Amino acid sequence: MSTARFAPTPAGPVGEAHRTWLACCAEAGWAPRRPVERVPLDAAAGRTTAADVHALWSSPAQERAAMDGVAVRSADTVDASQDRPVRLPPGSWDVVDTGDPLPAGRDAVIMREHVRRVPDGTVEIVAPAPPGRHVRPIGEDVVAGERLLPAGHRVRPVDAAMVAAAGHRDLPVVRRPVVAVLPTGDEIRPVGSALEPGGLGPGGIVDTNSLMLAGMAQEAGCATRVLPVVPDDPALLATAVGAAADGADLVLVIAGSSAGRDDHTAGVLATLGKVAVHGVAMRPGHPVVLGVLEDTVPVPVVGVPGYPVSAAHVFDTFAAPMIAALTGGAPRPVDRVTAVLGTAVDSPGHVEESVLVRLEDRDGTLTAVPSGRGAGALSRLARADGVLRVPAGATGHPAGATVTVERLPGAPAADRVGTG
Amino acid sequence: MSTARFAPTPAGPVGEAHRTWLACCAEAGWAPRRPVERVPLDAAAGRTTAADVHALWSSPAQERAAMDGVAVRSADTVDASQDRPVRLPPGSWDVVDTGDPLPAGRDAVIMREHVRRVPDGTVEIVAPAPPGRHVRPIGEDVVAGERLLPAGHRVRPVDAAMVAAAGHRDLPVVRRPVVAVLPTGDEIRPVGSALEPGGLGPGGIVDTNSLMLAGMAQEAGCATRVLPVVPDDPALLATAVGAAADGADLVLVIAGSSAGRDDHTAGVLATLGKVAVHGVAMRPGHPVVLGVLEDTVPVPVVGVPGYPVSAAHVFDTFAAPMIAALTGGAPRPVDRVTAVLGTAVDSPGHVEESVLVRLEDRDGTLTAVPSGRGAGALSRLARADGVLRVPAGATGHPAGATVTVERLPGAPAADRVGTG
Repeated sequence: MSTARFAPTPAGPVGEAHRTWLACCAEAGWAPRRPVERVPLDAAAGRTTAADVHALWSSPAQERAAMDGVAVRSADTVDASQDRPVRLPPGSWDVVDTGDPLPAGRDAVIMREHVRRVPDGTVEIVAPAPPGRHVRPIGEDVVAGERLLPAGHRVRPVDAAMVAAAGHRDLPVVRRPVVAVLPTGDEIRPVGSALEPGGLGPGGIVDTNSLMLAGMAQEAGCATRVLPVVPDDPALLATAVGAAADGADLVLVIAGSSAGRDDHTAGVLATLGKVAVHGVAMRPGHPVVLGVLEDTVPVPVVGVPGYPVSAAHVFDTFAAPMIAALTGGAPRPVDRVTAVLGTAVDSPGHVEESVLVRLEDRDGTLTAVPSGRGAGALSRLARADGVLRVPAGATGHPAGATVTVERLPGAPAADRVGTG
Repeated sequence: MSTARFAPTPAGPVGEAHRTWLACCAEAGWAPRRPVERVPLDAAAGRTTAADVHALWSSPAQERAAMDGVAVRSADTVDASQDRPVRLPPGSWDVVDTGDPLPAGRDAVIMREHVRRVPDGTVEIVAPAPPGRHVRPIGEDVVAGERLLPAGHRVRPVDAAMVAAAGHRDLPVVRRPVVAVLPTGDEIRPVGSALEPGGLGPGGIVDTNSLMLAGMAQEAGCATRVLPVVPDDPALLATAVGAAADGADLVLVIAGSSAGRDDHTAGVLATLGKVAVHGVAMRPGHPVVLGVLEDTVPVPVVGVPGYPVSAAHVFDTFAAPMIAALTGGAPRPVDRVTAVLGTAVDSPGHVEESVLVRLEDRDGTLTAVPSGRGAGALSRLARADGVLRVPAGATGHPAGATVTVERLPGAPAADRVGTG
């Protein structure tokens, strides 16, 4: 049709698109900056370490009792037996509780159940206590200088506790990358529009994508800035994209990425920087645009298709790895489960296809039930438990095939499925 | 030993302890309050719905084009074929982009690749378009009135987007439960103490548990209040526990839960309310105290053992389900993987044992390697990938046995193990 303005480049595979995008960004002078800030340990959970973290001191820093009982000198106990108990005089033993530092001169602890305190101030023991018995040695937990966390590690509460035990009170973390989200389209209305006077109007579509993508970016550890909706006007879009990039580490421009008459993203991006990829051999998400803005600082940009399932998939496929590169961390790990396919999946073969599935327990067999393919159905995405990947070149799977399903974050675990 | 003040009750199994605790709380008049607040959708992720959420309107609310192309009246196309193309005059067709509302009088869309626009203003088509072809019907995504989310659902970004599409701009969620964390013990020092003048001092132990437990409670969706360390003095502890309970939905009193000479938690709790359980047949975490404070409002309390691995396990076993009850949500789902046991695990048989394991890829076989048992080693917990449960009554597993491992949140996924 003659109204197409931009001839899409031939759609290559996903991995190639990603490499092409990164190469294009690098050529424009882009590199992850990863500015560092120190945060107190009680604010460090969820952040990504900016450097290796080493133990400042050993933990425990002294020998400590590992049981409630009495601390003794092992040598004093060697002759003790049930038949010939040994009595230790006052001053040669100490009552200790679990965690207490071992008093000077003591090298073993006898559990309180195994000693008898005699009214004359002695204790009676009936078995030898070898050196180190029920004693936590220095450095049992961490040794001074030991690497506790690698750079690029997403900090959990237990990690914060471990580094606190090793003497730290704060951590160097990568500043949260800033993701700017720019919704575009004459028909796009802010969330809740229909509740305002004037309402959604005929043809209006609620801007659900900004909400979803900003939420996903926040879950990935980013700060987000959602900008006002820009109409389908190249000049306005160019201004808005430039403003969005200011101070941002990644810009997501929503919709305007297919070749319909109002799709200006690629064209505008070509004037403000470079288009690395326009179209990828994947479904959903085929019309994605990947490029870089060449402002004072180069900023990577993703033109995200407007269909919600496509938008989410493009985020996972391209934005999430870029965010990982920005923080130096790893993308969210993927949980895979094995299931039996409930109904056949036919794929066209020339694209990598991602099929949403529900996971159901059918007579004790974990069964993956494809939930259709329309890229528009947000409810289908919200109700999916996982994704079945059909690589390019494969034409699908018959019903009954054993398949690997990638669980979606927040979807019920495999052992809890089948209730809905 | 004569210094034990509280005879521990016989330690029952975990499930029984949980039921006894809940029954004790209920007897004291406690019930989850679940106060409701409305939050805008862009702040709803991670919160728990306080009620079922239904669609306010259908989405799409109008029929919409599912492809870029021309919208037509299906009846005008029935005679079209390659040999005898049909020409539709101006006014009988409209150019539409994906997502556009279907113009009045049109009921099908022909993809732009399949039409030819003729300079005289007509379009030529070569195949019939049945009614509804490439049209998204009203309610394809959600139907007005349909239940979108159940009460007790932890909201994800995609859920917020779905309810926005169905007309909402905010959601009723359960107010975050308030968890008060009260560290106790003469030897316990605030995080970072050693960096201050005076330092940690001999025998001092860093308060890593407050940091870890507060972080875990926050991850479970709670607001937290960490209180100053209370010395081992029953009167001071009683005052502090009472103050901690003020405005809290759950109080975690750390340490002071075994039967050592300075362990006052159970005694103090008995004076301020009721002790439901003191000691559970599990390892680690055996000396846990479960009870309820009978203040103006009854508040559940957990006396958490001071060893970090025990503290984390007690949180997961008792605090996490209580937090789920407070919000009406489900506890974090458990990811289970099947692995081969690398070395034998021997269990005493009379307790439910939780063994930390590393997951390693050994020649392509996912292998669970037990990482020892000391409850004090925070680094072992931080480095574990999962937990192997050995139920009471079982005496362990031989090396090479096939076992089920519960993955720890934030630990690398099964397909990424074996790199460290």
